[in-house]
Amino acid sequence: MELSNKPYLTTRSINPENQETPIKFLKTETIPTTYFFRRNHFQYPTILNDNFFLPITGQVKMPIVFQYSQIVQMETTAIKCFLECAGNKRSKFNPPVFGEQWEEGAISQGEWKGISLSCLLEITGIAADAREVVFVGYDYGKQEDIEHHIPFARSLPLEKAIHPDTIIAYEYNGRPLTYKHGFPFRLIVPGWYGMASVKWLKKIILIDDTFKGPFQTDDYVYYPKLSDPYPVTMVNVNSLIQKPLDYEIIDEGVTLIEGIAWSGESEVTNVDISFNGQQWVDAILIGETLDKTNRWTKWKFHWNAPKGEHTIYCRASDSKGRKQPLEPMWNKKGYGYNAITKIRVKVK
Amino acid sequence: MELSNKPYLTTRSINPENQETPIKFLKTETIPTTYFFRRNHFQYPTILNDNFFLPITGQVKMPIVFQYSQIVQMETTAIKCFLECAGNKRSKFNPPVFGEQWEEGAISQGEWKGISLSCLLEITGIAADAREVVFVGYDYGKQEDIEHHIPFARSLPLEKAIHPDTIIAYEYNGRPLTYKHGFPFRLIVPGWYGMASVKWLKKIILIDDTFKGPFQTDDYVYYPKLSDPYPVTMVNVNSLIQKPLDYEIIDEGVTLIEGIAWSGESEVTNVDISFNGQQWVDAILIGETLDKTNRWTKWKFHWNAPKGEHTIYCRASDSKGRKQPLEPMWNKKGYGYNAITKIRVKVK
Repeated sequence: MELSNKPYLTTRSINPENQETPIKFLKTETIPTTYFFRRNHFQYPTILNDNFFLPITGQVKMPIVFQYSQIVQMETTAIKCFLECAGNKRSKFNPPVFGEQWEEGAISQGEWKGISLSCLLEITGIAADAREVVFVGYDYGKQEDIEHHIPFARSLPLEKAIHPDTIIAYEYNGRPLTYKHGFPFRLIVPGWYGMASVKWLKKIILIDDTFKGPFQTDDYVYYPKLSDPYPVTMVNVNSLIQKPLDYEIIDEGVTLIEGIAWSGESEVTNVDISFNGQQWVDAILIGETLDKTNRWTKWKFHWNAPKGEHTIYCRASDSKGRKQPLEPMWNKKGYGYNAITKIRVKVK
Repeated sequence: MELSNKPYLTTRSINPENQETPIKFLKTETIPTTYFFRRNHFQYPTILNDNFFLPITGQVKMPIVFQYSQIVQMETTAIKCFLECAGNKRSKFNPPVFGEQWEEGAISQGEWKGISLSCLLEITGIAADAREVVFVGYDYGKQEDIEHHIPFARSLPLEKAIHPDTIIAYEYNGRPLTYKHGFPFRLIVPGWYGMASVKWLKKIILIDDTFKGPFQTDDYVYYPKLSDPYPVTMVNVNSLIQKPLDYEIIDEGVTLIEGIAWSGESEVTNVDISFNGQQWVDAILIGETLDKTNRWTKWKFHWNAPKGEHTIYCRASDSKGRKQPLEPMWNKKGYGYNAITKIRVKVK
C-alpha cells in the first residue's frame, strides 16, 4: 500500500480561529479552500436567513436591499488574486511585536467570482456627498477599550470601492464560498491587505465622512518608530522561498531554489537571488506573459551548491518600481513585513 | 449553524513526512492517533504479508519467527507514556542548528498495548554472550556517506531491552497501530527519546557486540562543544506552556497559566514559575497521586497579571533530582533541548 502525505494548516489560535496556509508545501496557482489561511477577529457568526439580504444605504440616491438570488443572476466578474493578512511574517520583526505570531503562510490565492460593487452602486446611485463606503460584517465581539460588542467593519475610499475589480464575491474556485471564508457574501479588494476584504457582509453604507471604526483607526494602522501613523492599505512587494527550507541540509551539486513573489496593485517584474546580500542574479519568472496584477508569480533558480553553510537571499521588485528592503519597517503592531527573504542551508 | 475549530499538525516536511502535534492546543491525557507527531527518516515502507512475521535471531538459544496471530494472543502489557523526538525544540538552539526545525510539538502521549519483549525472549532464551538487542524497521533509504540503501535500525542494551515496560506494541489507544505509526509492530521504549521506539519492526537480533548502525553512531549522538560525544538515550526533564501563547496579548487580572512537564525514566516532582528568572513559585501539579513515570504531568498557576510586558519562566524538576537548566546544552546535531521554558506576554 502507498501512503500519501499532505501538509496541514498551521494553527496559531483556535478561538478566534487563526491558521496559516502551509504555503511552503503548496505549489498550485490556486489554493483549495481547505488550505486557505483563516484569520478571524471574533467567533464565527451564525448564519441566518437575514444573511442572504444585502442592504446598500447611506449616501445613495436610492437605498436598496439586494437579495442573494438577485445578485447571483447579475453580470459576473471573476478575479484571480492573492489575499495576504497584514500581519503575515509578524514573527520576523526584531524587536518582536506582540500579537498573532504569523510566519509566512498568512497568504493564499484563488479565483473569486461575484459582482463588481460598482454595478450595484450604479443601481442605487451615489449621492454627490459620498466619500467612503463602509462594509459591516456579521462577525462581532469585544474589542479593547470598547464597552459594548462591535462588528468587524472597514471602509474604502469611494475610488477604490468603485474599481471594477472590487467585487462582492459569492464563489471561490468555482464553488460557493465556504462558511469560514465569508458565505454568503464577501468583499474582495484585490491588492489591499486582507482586512479590507470583509467577510459575511451584513450591510454596505456610503458615508460623507471618514470612517472611524477601531479596525480602521486603532488596528490596521502603521505606527512606525520615527514618523506619524498611517493606515494599512496596499500590499507591499514581498516573496518567499518554498524550497529549500530554512536550515535544511541539502546535497552538493545543482539544486532548484523556488518560491513565489507578489505585490499589491502591481505585478512582480523581477526576483533577484543572492548568496551574500551584495551581488544579485536574476531568478527565472514562470508564466511571465500573463497579467500578474495582484497575483503571485512563481520563480525558480538553479544553483550549483558548493559544500558549506550558506544564506540564500531573495528580493522581489514590482512594476511600480518598489523592491523588498534590506530592513523591514518596524512598526508597533507589526504590519506589512517585507524585508528581503532570507534562509540558511547547509550543503553536504 | 455552529462551527467547531480544530488545530492541525504543523508540517515540517512532506517527504519524508515530519509533522508536529499541535500540542499547545491539546489538553487531553492521551493524544488521538491523528494528532500524534510524525517523524520519519525515510518514505513510508510498503506493508506486505511478511510484515506480520517477527523473527528473533542472533544470540538466542532458539531463533523463532513469531506470527502476528500468536503475539496478539499472548499476555498483554499496556503502557501509557509519552514519546518525544530527540530533536524536539531544536529551533530554539542558539547558535541555530541545521536540520528539521521542530518547535515544541514533537511530543505526544498515549496508551500502547503489546507484549513485553522480555516475554518473547523468555521463549527464545538469551545466549550468555548477548549484550545488545538490535531492532530493524521495514523503512529504508539513502543515508549520508553510505552507498547502498539501509534500513532504520537501533539497538538497546540488554538490560533496557528486558525491562518489563519495553514492549512490542500492536495497539495505540485501544485500536491497532495505524500504518503511519508502525503497524503492525512497533517497539516502545518508555523514557527514551523516540528514535529508540523503532516502527514497522522487521526483525530483532541479539548481538554479542556493540551495534554500529548510523542512527546509533552518527545520528542520535550528542556532540557538545567542549566534551566527548555520547549517545542520545533517556529523555531530559522538560516542560511547555500551553496557555498563554508566546507573544500573546492578554487582559489584566487573574489569568490561568497552564502546561505540561515530563521527564524520562522518572516523574515530574515540581514545576516552578518565575517572572524574572530569579524568584520561583510552585505551580500546582494536576493528578499528583498517579504514577507518572514516563508520563507528562499537567500543571497550572493562577497569575494576577499586572499591565505591562512580562516574561514567564517555567522550570520542571524530576524524581531523579534533575531540573531544567537556564541554558541548553548546545550540541552540533541539536538534540535534547530542555532549557527553562520561557514565553513573553503583553498585559493590557
